[in-house]
Amino acid sequence: MRLTLLGTGNAGQVPVYNCFCAACERARAKPQYRRGPCSALLEFGTQRWLVDAGLTDLAERFPPGSLSGIIQTHYHADHAQGLLHLRWGLDMSLPVLGPPDPDGLADLYKYPGILDFSRKLEAFVPAQLDGCVVTPVPLAHSKITYGYVFEAEGQRYAYLTDTVGLPPDTQAFLARQPLDLLVLDCSFAPTTTAPRNHNDLSRALDTIHALNVKQAVLTHISHGLDVWLMDEANTLPDGVVVGHDGAVFGNPVLAGMASA
Amino acid sequence: MRLTLLGTGNAGQVPVYNCFCAACERARAKPQYRRGPCSALLEFGTQRWLVDAGLTDLAERFPPGSLSGIIQTHYHADHAQGLLHLRWGLDMSLPVLGPPDPDGLADLYKYPGILDFSRKLEAFVPAQLDGCVVTPVPLAHSKITYGYVFEAEGQRYAYLTDTVGLPPDTQAFLARQPLDLLVLDCSFAPTTTAPRNHNDLSRALDTIHALNVKQAVLTHISHGLDVWLMDEANTLPDGVVVGHDGAVFGNPVLAGMASA
Ligand SMILES: [Mn+2]
Ligand SMILES: [Mn+2]
Ligand SMILES: [Mn+2]
Ligand SMILES: [Mn+2]
Ligand SMILES: [Zn+2]
Ligand SMILES: [Zn+2]
Repeated sequence: MRLTLLGTGNAGQVPVYNCFCAACERARAKPQYRRGPCSALLEFGTQRWLVDAGLTDLAERFPPGSLSGIIQTHYHADHAQGLLHLRWGLDMSLPVLGPPDPDGLADLYKYPGILDFSRKLEAFVPAQLDGCVVTPVPLAHSKITYGYVFEAEGQRYAYLTDTVGLPPDTQAFLARQPLDLLVLDCSFAPTTTAPRNHNDLSRALDTIHALNVKQAVLTHISHGLDVWLMDEANTLPDGVVVGHDGAVFGNPVLAGMASA
Repeated sequence: MRLTLLGTGNAGQVPVYNCFCAACERARAKPQYRRGPCSALLEFGTQRWLVDAGLTDLAERFPPGSLSGIIQTHYHADHAQGLLHLRWGLDMSLPVLGPPDPDGLADLYKYPGILDFSRKLEAFVPAQLDGCVVTPVPLAHSKITYGYVFEAEGQRYAYLTDTVGLPPDTQAFLARQPLDLLVLDCSFAPTTTAPRNHNDLSRALDTIHALNVKQAVLTHISHGLDVWLMDEANTLPDGVVVGHDGAVFGNPVLAGMASA
């Protein structure tokens, strides 16, 4: 099983429009420091699942047949906006799994086009993805949001964004199982007052330390956290790394990818 | 006054995802045949206004300070999606004018960020844009939609999309004034049954012939109309042209553009 971070930014991304902080200027000068909308590609066997569809160039990135489907954490625009265009494809059907959000994003449910929203996931109920078991876990966010535990090829990954802390049931559920990889919302530099809807670094580290995690990766990162990390990245504990767009975690993919 | 078509496609754009018709294949092979989300740039004096924000790369295309503001025809995703990211800019305010749609798109009104939606336009009431008079005219579409008459530098342009035909009041209002340029919704090849929400070519030509138009430009074009035009473009009447992305109409801009 392999997870590639396609985007690691928060809603504003990096660089932020009209921001000239050190992180935003660095990202303009050096594209490897840019952070796109928070999303990932999960590969196992011959399956390739997109985790969140906030990228707006999905039709170019993923030619027909190259994706098995899409798993949504939630339907905020920075995680679902790419669906608004992709849906207008023809002569195919792409499953979009996610939480039972009655609203979705804009008119996506009303005009789903090629997107098939019919398969609903249920919190804490394992679902089969042809070679991977995915278990949704509720997160603490301003819109109904699921994190996911993915189990395939002897590995267990958790992908948890957007969230501030974890709901007690989710925390207890995750504490019971060792994780090879935890990708976690860490939007802000350490703050004394609790942020809303997203972790700052202090709360992200609290969550990491409360679980049994081999490798933790921070994502959904703001320009403000990037500025802080310029001086303080060396203070991160062992086993905690900052995600960046294009970073790959896990095993090499064994089988060839599905072809169009 | 100068109008540049930034996008001339319908909601699905050209090429359509997973479509292999002659028009979609041509657009993949030759980028000049691609059609992005329907939008335009209007320039007069030192002002530069974006007409519809369906492009998702607005932050890259329009550095801070390069736009005077945005004029929305309506809030369907293919016309407004680019606002979902642009709003998260910092330390500036960008006016977004448009119809009094109570819903907008997704959570744009709830979290407007740098976008200022406070100035509402009223049908048939001329508004001043520092060197241009813009008059909204209601269109016939599935969501509240305005077309616009722009008057500046001795020229009068009308930009009318999305619409099927015209409401009688709008038709009467427009028939009273000669137009140097008419940009008009023409989504489909000629059909016998009336299409919903958008013009086919027959209805677009009916509208053009009912008005006093020097030059008509078709926009919001589907791959299906492009296929039809491959054989039939030479049957278009004099004074009617098919828009394409990047096409420029009107006078050269006299003053320098606003700089960042
Ligand atoms: Mn987010
Ligand atoms: Mn969110
Ligand atoms: Mn449209
Ligand atoms: Mn529309
Ligand atoms: Zn910044
Ligand atoms: Zn096609």
